[in-house]
Amino acid sequence: RPSPRCIVAMARTQSYWASVEAEIEAYLKKSIPIRSPETVFEPMHHLTFAAPRTTAAALCVAACELVGGGRDQAMAAAAAIHLMHAAAYTHEHLPLTDRPRPRPGIQHKYDPNIELLTGDGIIPFGLELLARSMDPARTKPDKILRVIVEITRATGSQGMVDGQYQELGLDQLGSEYDIIEYVCRKKEGELHACGAACGAILGGGAEEEIETLRRFGLHAGMVQGIQGKKKAGLMEEKIEKLKELAHKELKSLKGKKTELISSLIEPSVAAVQIS
Amino acid sequence: RPSPRCIVAMARTQSYWASVEAEIEAYLKKSIPIRSPETVFEPMHHLTFAAPRTTAAALCVAACELVGGGRDQAMAAAAAIHLMHAAAYTHEHLPLTDRPRPRPGIQHKYDPNIELLTGDGIIPFGLELLARSMDPARTKPDKILRVIVEITRATGSQGMVDGQYQELGLDQLGSEYDIIEYVCRKKEGELHACGAACGAILGGGAEEEIETLRRFGLHAGMVQGIQGKKKAGLMEEKIEKLKELAHKELKSLKGKKTELISSLIEPSVAAVQIS
Repeated sequence: RPSPRCIVAMARTQSYWASVEAEIEAYLKKSIPIRSPETVFEPMHHLTFAAPRTTAAALCVAACELVGGGRDQAMAAAAAIHLMHAAAYTHEHLPLTDRPRPRPGIQHKYDPNIELLTGDGIIPFGLELLARSMDPARTKPDKILRVIVEITRATGSQGMVDGQYQELGLDQLGSEYDIIEYVCRKKEGELHACGAACGAILGGGAEEEIETLRRFGLHAGMVQGIQGKKKAGLMEEKIEKLKELAHKELKSLKGKKTELISSLIEPSVAAVQIS
Repeated sequence: RPSPRCIVAMARTQSYWASVEAEIEAYLKKSIPIRSPETVFEPMHHLTFAAPRTTAAALCVAACELVGGGRDQAMAAAAAIHLMHAAAYTHEHLPLTDRPRPRPGIQHKYDPNIELLTGDGIIPFGLELLARSMDPARTKPDKILRVIVEITRATGSQGMVDGQYQELGLDQLGSEYDIIEYVCRKKEGELHACGAACGAILGGGAEEEIETLRRFGLHAGMVQGIQGKKKAGLMEEKIEKLKELAHKELKSLKGKKTELISSLIEPSVAAVQIS
């Protein structure tokens, strides 16, 4: 049973992540009004919010605040990360004629054609949002370009798409556990690494802080990914090792209040994320 | 029978467009090496070049040169435009379970899953290429961000994706000719408008030149689009009207050598593009 002091700390971190998630959602709702042509924008709105949240977007905001930036400086990048994730989620659930294994049945509100095209619209929209967010008074355009490169890489052929290939069994890597680890690295790991790095870049972090937070994000994201798999119970050792690596990175960030951000890898917080 | 002088002019414009196309292709080949993981990059390379060329990419380079810019300044944007078009082409030909009309049979070298994921990788890659092309000595980062906004809009939900919706009959607009016109405006028209505007932005054109070239691109692209449809023969009047509008825009560009760029809407050049 946790101590009262511990419960207070848990409540504080939970309310922190909840407030970040709520702000990202509000930003996205404002950015995707249901406008004409409604046949296009209504599914875009729906599928953006139908996808499960990824903590990579919230981590982007938290990393920005950790290095001393303002929450609003990271909001467009966090929204873009969620949108790229939502597009990938939508396309992962498309009924194609050659899906090697059936996906867990999700409710399809739209026909496959609409889901395909909506995903194709969400990807450029996320990057448009980011490119438009330039405010020379606060964030220099070259920083935004750097963040665009980060996000396109993490979500493209070298990142998330590579993970999706492996997940579909389109390539043979090794044992079942090797594949799970590789997929979680490419999908959740690199997306969280990207989120943390983007937040640190936008918040004005030093290069060393950016790289430390990137490594923290990679480990924390892999923990999230593996914990979401059926075989997670058999990979406890791996999960503990990754948590240790993640904590080690945060410890190297001298003089920073890392308590909130470290809560991302604690089960109590993970439970809140999932619920 | 064309006069000898006319034949010389035609040969000159043909060799101009051919050299632009060849440079874009060389740039793309260099940008997409077949590297590890090959299961991801080999299909990306193949599907990038399997898509038919769009003159929107070449128009981007031509518009840049017309306003006084160097060819290399427009190359990344032209490549990005081709990549977005190639991704759309790949996804348009995916065998989904609810395609309302069969697509003309194209050779599928890969399974649908790979084609879906490759398209999903090509979209961010095109924008990554553009974001990485920043060279502060020649092109300011805010110009690149502006071009990213142009390309994401033209190829996203308000642009190409909207055209694909209409083309699939997912929405009812009006008569068959109204639909053809709308689809050609959204797909070929706005992509060419975007190409011309991006080239003019990157080449350092004045705002007025950018908007004139954008309108020229819209009309020229619609001509290309309609000419590619089966019903083109019944839409001659519309085509002539669009050509007239396109020529009118170029005439307003005082003191510019518009001969090469105007050849984009002449049948002799169109034939070269197709062959």
